Amino acid sequence: MNSLTVALVQHPCDGSREKNIAASLAGIRKGAALGAKLVVLPELHTGHYFPQNEETAHFDLAEPIPGPSTELFSAVARECGVVLVTSLFERRAAGLYHNSSVVFEKDGGVAGVYRKMHIPDDPAFYEKFYFTPGDLGFNPIQTSVGRLGVLVCWDQWFPEAARLMALAGAELLIYPTAIGWDPRDDVDEQERQLDAWVTVQRGHAVANALPVIAVNRVGLEADPAEIGPGIRFWGNSFVAGCQGEFLAQAGREREELLLVELDLRRGEAVRRVWPFLRDRRIDAYGDLLRRYRE
Amino acid sequence: MNSLTVALVQHPCDGSREKNIAASLAGIRKGAALGAKLVVLPELHTGHYFPQNEETAHFDLAEPIPGPSTELFSAVARECGVVLVTSLFERRAAGLYHNSSVVFEKDGGVAGVYRKMHIPDDPAFYEKFYFTPGDLGFNPIQTSVGRLGVLVCWDQWFPEAARLMALAGAELLIYPTAIGWDPRDDVDEQERQLDAWVTVQRGHAVANALPVIAVNRVGLEADPAEIGPGIRFWGNSFVAGCQGEFLAQAGREREELLLVELDLRRGEAVRRVWPFLRDRRIDAYGDLLRRYRE
Repeated sequence: MNSLTVALVQHPCDGSREKNIAASLAGIRKGAALGAKLVVLPELHTGHYFPQNEETAHFDLAEPIPGPSTELFSAVARECGVVLVTSLFERRAAGLYHNSSVVFEKDGGVAGVYRKMHIPDDPAFYEKFYFTPGDLGFNPIQTSVGRLGVLVCWDQWFPEAARLMALAGAELLIYPTAIGWDPRDDVDEQERQLDAWVTVQRGHAVANALPVIAVNRVGLEADPAEIGPGIRFWGNSFVAGCQGEFLAQAGREREELLLVELDLRRGEAVRRVWPFLRDRRIDAYGDLLRRYRE
Repeated sequence: MNSLTVALVQHPCDGSREKNIAASLAGIRKGAALGAKLVVLPELHTGHYFPQNEETAHFDLAEPIPGPSTELFSAVARECGVVLVTSLFERRAAGLYHNSSVVFEKDGGVAGVYRKMHIPDDPAFYEKFYFTPGDLGFNPIQTSVGRLGVLVCWDQWFPEAARLMALAGAELLIYPTAIGWDPRDDVDEQERQLDAWVTVQRGHAVANALPVIAVNRVGLEADPAEIGPGIRFWGNSFVAGCQGEFLAQAGREREELLLVELDLRRGEAVRRVWPFLRDRRIDAYGDLLRRYRE
């Protein structure tokens, strides 16, 4: 298999669960009809972005694996014959919840689960209240279309996560995402934030000679507590090649389906020219395991 | 000290040692006259880029620390009252050489030495023949203008190096560089390489909320063995701010002096919004010390 067609389903998630699921299903089916063999959805795509406030009732939104969402997305993966990267609020036990990605094989089976390892917490993104940090580590998920380095959102700011996936043989880095602007920030700050988000992930592509697929929500979602101005999710879902080059990028306003054909041979060619894995100074990296080097 | 003016001296290094030194000195003096308190030179700025072939006679170019180059640049740092980041081919002992950066205080004293930790080796960049990998680790150099995270060229592709500097309290990341195109590559490949080089370093700025200063040589330098087509050093010296935003960028053709005023308070403000250091999963990063995770 020398090439792989990927579909990125960027959509708003501000409606009812039914409406959000309909948007996801429509994107999956359209992507598959256009030839995609791998489809990626945004972070927590079945619901409103609830971590804008801390509210115990929101834990009712969590569901087990397997559960209603996995049953539904398993069926559509099988129906369409695609490998499917989904995201959900996982209820593992009473008082123990995760922000998880479930990857389905094209026959509908669960290829693997990733539990978000890095959990953010800043105004309007109160995720530490809801999500226990993942305990499955940074391990790619083997599928029929390759070894997928699935990470989630906040993980995308950490070069360590991308590197650990690359060292474990990941062939793609994939980030379901929910990121957007505080509408109160000025335009310059908003543009710096968006560009930083794109740039740090393109940097992971370069440092590891791996394609990067980032799929974001889009559109304004109100603060459920009606205190803050909400979050304007900035879209801009994109695919970068093994040298960080843009292969496709969505806009910032609306639902979009991006279809990209990846050349799976490119990574090895790039690594022969820029053999970073050969030259890592693992003898001198010990302090990466420290919080700080006072 | 809330701001710092930095000068980047991008110049060709294809002339005689005297001519190259004259170009470095002119840039340092001009930068200082314009208000710079920190001046950065390209990698191995006193000579032709000799590692284009493997030739034992080239070891004659190496010099000790202290030695003729450090004496000269110490004097100009004192004369101009600037902190100065230089680069040289260090002779440590017979058969033991390094690619080193010497940083001078504004009084001419040696503030510190960094020995390039990651050594490249690919066609026309046969550095592994000449340079023993550094054994001083990734430690910032304390100066009167701040803690400088000085790294050299190939180091710039490794997020680990930038992170270790950040964890040790570096306030700036600084990369004296010698990178360019193989004139035989097509234009698309050349542009991807240049953009990858810029992007991965802007990514370090984002991941660590630190300004990045990269200073490159510029211009064509012939292969001393007259076999290959030489290297066209691509200039494009630049400064990125703490969110990876461009603060200044030189062209690809000629000698340039870039002067940039850095806001030293910005980094802490950015880290309060995006507190990546808080959330690193040091409990799960152990495999970063492995070559590969089979």
